[in-house]
Amino acid sequence: MRLIIDTDTAGDDAFSILLALKAPHVTLEGITICNGNVPFDQQAENALYTLEVAGAGGTVPVYKGCPLPMLRKPVDATEFFGADGMSDANFPMAAQRPEAGHAVDFLIDTIMSNPGEIEILAQAPLTNIATAWVKEPRIADNLKHLWVMGGLDNSIGNTTPASEFNFYVDPEAAKIVVNAGFRLTLSTWTLTMSSGLLPDEKLRVIEAMDTPLSRFFMTISQAPFKRTEMRYGRPLSTHPDSLTCACAIDPEIMLEVADCLVDVETQGELTRAYSSICTPLTAEEAEIDFLWPSAPANARVIRKADTNRFADMLIAALAE
Amino acid sequence: MRLIIDTDTAGDDAFSILLALKAPHVTLEGITICNGNVPFDQQAENALYTLEVAGAGGTVPVYKGCPLPMLRKPVDATEFFGADGMSDANFPMAAQRPEAGHAVDFLIDTIMSNPGEIEILAQAPLTNIATAWVKEPRIADNLKHLWVMGGLDNSIGNTTPASEFNFYVDPEAAKIVVNAGFRLTLSTWTLTMSSGLLPDEKLRVIEAMDTPLSRFFMTISQAPFKRTEMRYGRPLSTHPDSLTCACAIDPEIMLEVADCLVDVETQGELTRAYSSICTPLTAEEAEIDFLWPSAPANARVIRKADTNRFADMLIAALAE
Amino acid sequence: MRLIIDTDTAGDDAFSILLALKAPHVTLEGITICNGNVPFDQQAENALYTLEVAGAGGTVPVYKGCPLPMLRKPVDATEFFGADGMSDANFPMAAQRPEAGHAVDFLIDTIMSNPGEIEILAQAPLTNIATAWVKEPRIADNLKHLWVMGGLDNSIGNTTPASEFNFYVDPEAAKIVVNAGFRLTLSTWTLTMSSGLLPDEKLRVIEAMDTPLSRFFMTISQAPFKRTEMRYGRPLSTHPDSLTCACAIDPEIMLEVADCLVDVETQGELTRAYSSICTPLTAEEAEIDFLWPSAPANARVIRKADTNRFADMLIAALAE
Amino acid sequence: MRLIIDTDTAGDDAFSILLALKAPHVTLEGITICNGNVPFDQQAENALYTLEVAGAGGTVPVYKGCPLPMLRKPVDATEFFGADGMSDANFPMAAQRPEAGHAVDFLIDTIMSNPGEIEILAQAPLTNIATAWVKEPRIADNLKHLWVMGGLDNSIGNTTPASEFNFYVDPEAAKIVVNAGFRLTLSTWTLTMSSGLLPDEKLRVIEAMDTPLSRFFMTISQAPFKRTEMRYGRPLSTHPDSLTCACAIDPEIMLEVADCLVDVETQGELTRAYSSICTPLTAEEAEIDFLWPSAPANARVIRKADTNRFADMLIAALAE
Ligand SMILES: [Ca+2]
Ligand SMILES: [Ca+2]
Ligand SMILES: [Ca+2]
Ligand SMILES: [Ca+2]
Repeated sequence: MRLIIDTDTAGDDAFSILLALKAPHVTLEGITICNGNVPFDQQAENALYTLEVAGAGGTVPVYKGCPLPMLRKPVDATEFFGADGMSDANFPMAAQRPEAGHAVDFLIDTIMSNPGEIEILAQAPLTNIATAWVKEPRIADNLKHLWVMGGLDNSIGNTTPASEFNFYVDPEAAKIVVNAGFRLTLSTWTLTMSSGLLPDEKLRVIEAMDTPLSRFFMTISQAPFKRTEMRYGRPLSTHPDSLTCACAIDPEIMLEVADCLVDVETQGELTRAYSSICTPLTAEEAEIDFLWPSAPANARVIRKADTNRFADMLIAALAE
Repeated sequence: MRLIIDTDTAGDDAFSILLALKAPHVTLEGITICNGNVPFDQQAENALYTLEVAGAGGTVPVYKGCPLPMLRKPVDATEFFGADGMSDANFPMAAQRPEAGHAVDFLIDTIMSNPGEIEILAQAPLTNIATAWVKEPRIADNLKHLWVMGGLDNSIGNTTPASEFNFYVDPEAAKIVVNAGFRLTLSTWTLTMSSGLLPDEKLRVIEAMDTPLSRFFMTISQAPFKRTEMRYGRPLSTHPDSLTCACAIDPEIMLEVADCLVDVETQGELTRAYSSICTPLTAEEAEIDFLWPSAPANARVIRKADTNRFADMLIAALAE
Repeated sequence: MRLIIDTDTAGDDAFSILLALKAPHVTLEGITICNGNVPFDQQAENALYTLEVAGAGGTVPVYKGCPLPMLRKPVDATEFFGADGMSDANFPMAAQRPEAGHAVDFLIDTIMSNPGEIEILAQAPLTNIATAWVKEPRIADNLKHLWVMGGLDNSIGNTTPASEFNFYVDPEAAKIVVNAGFRLTLSTWTLTMSSGLLPDEKLRVIEAMDTPLSRFFMTISQAPFKRTEMRYGRPLSTHPDSLTCACAIDPEIMLEVADCLVDVETQGELTRAYSSICTPLTAEEAEIDFLWPSAPANARVIRKADTNRFADMLIAALAE
Repeated sequence: MRLIIDTDTAGDDAFSILLALKAPHVTLEGITICNGNVPFDQQAENALYTLEVAGAGGTVPVYKGCPLPMLRKPVDATEFFGADGMSDANFPMAAQRPEAGHAVDFLIDTIMSNPGEIEILAQAPLTNIATAWVKEPRIADNLKHLWVMGGLDNSIGNTTPASEFNFYVDPEAAKIVVNAGFRLTLSTWTLTMSSGLLPDEKLRVIEAMDTPLSRFFMTISQAPFKRTEMRYGRPLSTHPDSLTCACAIDPEIMLEVADCLVDVETQGELTRAYSSICTPLTAEEAEIDFLWPSAPANARVIRKADTNRFADMLIAALAE
């Protein structure tokens, strides 16, 4: 598969890049950087360092994209990931430098030059993807598949009770993207909490491996461990982005999916970026229920994933 | 306990009234009718007939309240309960007639004349309770306890994906009430779906009893059975109101509760009446997390109930 | 005419009461107090003192109503009117005391007992009127006429650029009232600024009269004079409420009116309580214009008033 | 001056292009097409035909931009301008064809390559300008000046009572642009109605000239004449875009301007795209008024223009 990863590289974003790099059937065509977790340029450095630590420096172009959300003031997650997004590891600067071009153009050009060939894993706020679509709506038809990490599948959020971080940062971008007509698979924070927490025994395996990549994993997981312990009472190894990547790479990891009607709230007082997700009504119900949304499905939502299979993919990727 | 039930009497509202009537330690001081499930006057008739069929005709005053939501166009649930709210049973008119006074005045007068004595079970849209509070905010301090059936505890809704019926009908009233300062216990639709579905074996017990009240139960359950089968694939006996009443009457039915911060969305495009429910941040977290709502708890939310104990209470009430 | 004045008595509210008291053909049936300009109980005191200073102490009952807006946190105008609403005159307490009953009940009872007889001048946030309607919607048909001071007729506001004070304080109440089906005349802040500023020469006449009521006028105008000078560069004698009263008492003061479609924004981020006012489309236009609101007129909007005739009415009322 | 015109070419958009072409000191660097008045490609054709009829075919590149609003469903003005935007004149296709590149890139590249040199006249919905800024926020500092036709200066709208067409079509884009940090002059629909209606005697002059361009003017004005007659009772020659262009070309046409605080509503129910415009509070007022918006001015708003001087500029441009 020919994949582009759009990322606000910090913490689990890096593991997702590693999974794509290590999957033999995946050609990582490029990495595009979107505003999100930590200061914009630092995210590009984190992606470049991840490539380097994986021995892939210089092999995958990294493009910087939109440095700010479309409409809203920027929000970051440095309190979760540390100031550098890497648990304040302060890694050295990688040798590879970002490309001169813009992520939005790289996305449009690559998609339009390779119709039906390219897949995108969007694991950041959706500013880059939305801006690319506003500029060139035909990418929706020409992209093979869009994998999005974002939103909530009718559960409590991680940023506000009503919202997940990626959607919260740029709600307008999220609304644009889910309504743009892409062939779309959505991996929500709800899925992360149900299927994307690394089991303790798998974490101990990684810790024990003591490879460069397992040490990289442990190093950049420290800040999230502390923060999740404060919130949930015990340290959690949360993998929203790498689980989504794993689903894209190996669809058998998706144990349960549903074709859903998805939309995003941009108008609320308490519900900024709330994701409305439901299965469409049957024709019979649509005739009597006028309040429930009535439209065809616009996304496949992953409802259950194979945690162990995902964990083993991650362990294999860190084994070198 | 001295209880007033505020109800849009249809289907399960009636069973809730029966539970209160049959509980020896409950004095049902009055029933107040609020707009909601079916045409306004029909709801009063349903309450009066329920009293009569339970042998309590003439013993509990019934007051009509606000016939319309505060701000929004009326919405009903006749497609769920039938045109008369009783599965189109078309019961005869009860002998008892509604009182001349207004529900809002009955609520205020009863509460203010009996400070710290009265509890309300609000099992309808909250127009009456909100209007009473707007007129006389001191009822919040003088009511002993307010039991509310409404809202969602971070799960999918029954009216829209984001909302439960009672809150949806009058979102402004719901927002007023949860922020009014009442001692408040919230029983959500989420709880109904997890703990308020009558188990099949209990339903068969009721069916087999063949008492006047069990026949009443089966008769008015027919429309909801059909409608839930269409939505959920099998007929469900859903008990939002009577489960809430059971919790008020017998607190041991509440197996798990949490002091929560609750608010209601009145501004959204997709999220009309969404209920934001979360446990308050610790002081330590509040110092680093500026996006999560930060305020003291304003409601006790029931998170798990004893379904069998509730079912047995219902069976006992129908046994005569 | 049989008139009730609903008022958050401060500054010009008092002059409006004086106009009604002095008009021979007006029977002032009662004064009802609504939350708004200054602390709630102080407003009742201001109304009672106004009656006393006008020699009408004990002749007009004063009822206290809703002490808070329906849904929103209270907002006041003490920075405009002084802490007591009377330019910090700290008048002595009047002998007359408020009635025991509630303003909302007084409104409903008076209207319903005198169908087609009563007019209301609503010169405060609309909490009392809206609550009365929610409790008893039939008042809309049974009130002879509702005169409302509030909103903007497509001009800049006095509270935010998009809003006028009375509507801003309780936007939900304003939306309820304009859509409730009353026979309604609206006197906007736009009209106040175009037709309700007392001309300098008229102000000098009042100042020179040196009667008890002209001294009362000058005393309680001091704070508004200072505040308007700060905002507009010169002291303005602004008369939103008394101009509206003058129009109700003497319709010839209304030089230009239009039947309009009026609604109130309760959802915006910048536009809380914005009043949408337009003349309805012709049938011909409605066929081609699908964006402009299309509904029958629900209010008569005063677009021009006779400033001198109003000023002379005010001068006459203060002459004693 | 080095000018780019961003336009949804239909009716008055064309006259604005003519003014720029005929001004000796203006170099029209390019024309960019944005979604808006009529079908997207037709707008490009209208711009190309306008260049041709002005004898400028092949001299100014025309770039197509964003074919849809960012977030909202498209809205057009064919009922005002005719299906082709030119009063259904069905002009022949011009020889010049649109450039291959994208308007957004042309804007960014031209601005960033010529820092402090370029001015933009934005006379369409602001999708192109907003998308350019989201992609490259540094254009705000590097653009010499942005002239925007859009919004309302506290008066009634042309699309809804609360909104002007350009802002209404893409409210998110408008909000992005006014908050982006551009050196910005705003020419509102309010100004159009006060200063941008062609006086009858000037219209008769144009009609009498009988030049190719005056005939072009009269031909494409026919649909707007009919539509304005229906709305306003007499045909109006409305010039939002060409008046704005005239102000940019000849600043003496601006008789009155004010530095204002401008923002755009994206959240309301009745107020989609409402433009909040006010002069900032003085420091003294900001200390006592907490409801009025408090921030520095972000736009210069034109409040009065020299209608005759504008008309004479238009007549001169049509004289050939
Ligand atoms: Ca990410
Ligand atoms: Ca109920
Ligand atoms: Ca007032
Ligand atoms: Ca235009």
